[in-house]
Amino acid sequence: MGKRLDLSSPAMFIGRQGNGVISFGSGQPDLPPPREAIEGIDIRKDLRYGLIQGELPLREALAREYPASTAKNFVITNGASEALDLIFRAWGKGKVLLPRPYYYSYPPIITMAGMEPVYTDLVDGRIDIDDFRKKVEGCRAVLINSPSNPTGRIESIDTLKEIEKITAKLGIYVISDEVYKDLIYERENYQIKGEHVITVNSFSKTYAMCGVRVGYLWSSDQKIPEEIIKIKTHTSMNTNLVGQDMALNAMAAPKQYIKDQQRIWRERRDLIYKSFRELGFDLWEPEGAFYIFPKCLNPREFVETLYLEHNVITYLGEWFGAPSHIRLSYALDAEEIVEGMGRIKEAMKKVRCM
Amino acid sequence: MGKRLDLSSPAMFIGRQGNGVISFGSGQPDLPPPREAIEGIDIRKDLRYGLIQGELPLREALAREYPASTAKNFVITNGASEALDLIFRAWGKGKVLLPRPYYYSYPPIITMAGMEPVYTDLVDGRIDIDDFRKKVEGCRAVLINSPSNPTGRIESIDTLKEIEKITAKLGIYVISDEVYKDLIYERENYQIKGEHVITVNSFSKTYAMCGVRVGYLWSSDQKIPEEIIKIKTHTSMNTNLVGQDMALNAMAAPKQYIKDQQRIWRERRDLIYKSFRELGFDLWEPEGAFYIFPKCLNPREFVETLYLEHNVITYLGEWFGAPSHIRLSYALDAEEIVEGMGRIKEAMKKVRCM
Repeated sequence: MGKRLDLSSPAMFIGRQGNGVISFGSGQPDLPPPREAIEGIDIRKDLRYGLIQGELPLREALAREYPASTAKNFVITNGASEALDLIFRAWGKGKVLLPRPYYYSYPPIITMAGMEPVYTDLVDGRIDIDDFRKKVEGCRAVLINSPSNPTGRIESIDTLKEIEKITAKLGIYVISDEVYKDLIYERENYQIKGEHVITVNSFSKTYAMCGVRVGYLWSSDQKIPEEIIKIKTHTSMNTNLVGQDMALNAMAAPKQYIKDQQRIWRERRDLIYKSFRELGFDLWEPEGAFYIFPKCLNPREFVETLYLEHNVITYLGEWFGAPSHIRLSYALDAEEIVEGMGRIKEAMKKVRCM
Repeated sequence: MGKRLDLSSPAMFIGRQGNGVISFGSGQPDLPPPREAIEGIDIRKDLRYGLIQGELPLREALAREYPASTAKNFVITNGASEALDLIFRAWGKGKVLLPRPYYYSYPPIITMAGMEPVYTDLVDGRIDIDDFRKKVEGCRAVLINSPSNPTGRIESIDTLKEIEKITAKLGIYVISDEVYKDLIYERENYQIKGEHVITVNSFSKTYAMCGVRVGYLWSSDQKIPEEIIKIKTHTSMNTNLVGQDMALNAMAAPKQYIKDQQRIWRERRDLIYKSFRELGFDLWEPEGAFYIFPKCLNPREFVETLYLEHNVITYLGEWFGAPSHIRLSYALDAEEIVEGMGRIKEAMKKVRCM
């Protein structure tokens, strides 16, 4: 088995939908963006270059959500991905500590920038603070992601505060990838603070506009945005202006939009978690984001069989540093989740999962 | 003098317009995009991730303009800048030959990717094919840009064919940055051909939509797009979908749109060239793009004085590898060009230019 598909990365699955495919693949909301993000947009006729740092009204709106900040603390980027890519390129060397399992793009962008990823293995989907303390020594930065893609777990506020303290003391940067901060089922988000913190976020998940590619980075230390702008001037210039207009309008949507989304995600989480438990899988209950990360005995064979014989996209855990898992995004309506789980049950007759 | 402004790069000038500023800075059309690019856009409600390679209808439309091509030969990028950045990152080592003066982003993106720029100096704004032949030995790639930013010059078709032959024989890639290919005043564009050619282009200049950030790369060798997609999956994912819709619509605009633009650019070229000659500057007559590149005795002092005392943005030649020049973009209406040239004449009373 194996070798029937190019499973070296998720690239072949991204953007595939329709034609009877049930995609538990790409991590992206299937719900529509807020009305405001689309209907309010009057595409401007002046489409000349914008500021590399991002449009001022958007950065000012963001500044109102970050304590003691101004527009100068932000850079608007092509999604959170580009924000991370630019941060590592600005450093260009040193070690970055990653909790493992990790989002699959982290190691390649760290390596491509000339930096070296080192790992602290999660215990039950959470950071083991003793191991963290050991591994973080000698690092230039640590990259955390709570709620986590792919585990769906969140770190406790105590852990986050401890990370804040340890890194501040050692003078190590914390990059906090908070793209799922509005999708926590258990508690409010806790934002790590300090001069050594760089927060990365995006409009993709909160406002269901992944394809528009608007994200940003924030730092209380204005030197960080300045460094990033120097690189972005050469690599992609301003982030697309229409997308920035859409992001600004989305921020004006009523908060109820986000609450409604959370309710839907929670219902789906309950549905898929129960369904996997009934099939006998070993897995954590997701607490945030929209991923579920079951253990699987023959993951490669299972992912291939699901795609080629059942038209179902799932992701290999090995892309996330966890070769004995598979990852599913439950960004599907209940009916599709039920249909997809039915196909998974069928495929289990052929491939041994546990 | 000097040190009054951060003139280490053009970053501080990009995106600055209005408030009485006359900007001969950023190279971007001031004319509006074709109606089709804006009015025809119905922002879709499905804003999920698109294909990393780019939307199929846009790549299919492009394929009709490139002989013997299909949608597979293209990757849609965040402007031509990102296309170039991704190409060099895909290689990651080796030498790249650059004609000098060069577009200011070329050396940093080559260096950031771990590659090394080497130079062949232009003679009278054109490639010296003997020097080219010598310098290209041992390079992995050569990057050409005709019409050229900053010189406004075009290479002869004989030179382009000779470059095609030399590099094919040596197995060296040619990256042809053709973002100004629709802005040649003297002749049709000549497209370099061969398995070893990567063409980079954008919708920014032809359709006056720089801020939308949609460009692309083309190669007859499908392995190149495949390599690029692997990187882009991690660094920025799909190019923004609304921008891709706008680019596709722009391609449907009547060809008269492009012809009208060319006529306007030619008139402006004539105006600014004559004006600089009358002031006594030593310079080449631009043959394409919308840049003029006069020699200047005290360029740093002149650029600073123009900005701080006359509200005029011009760019330093040293950013383009030509420290005794200044660069002006004439993407301004005739009235502004006349006003700007008046201010330049004033500033010449204070700073000696020749």
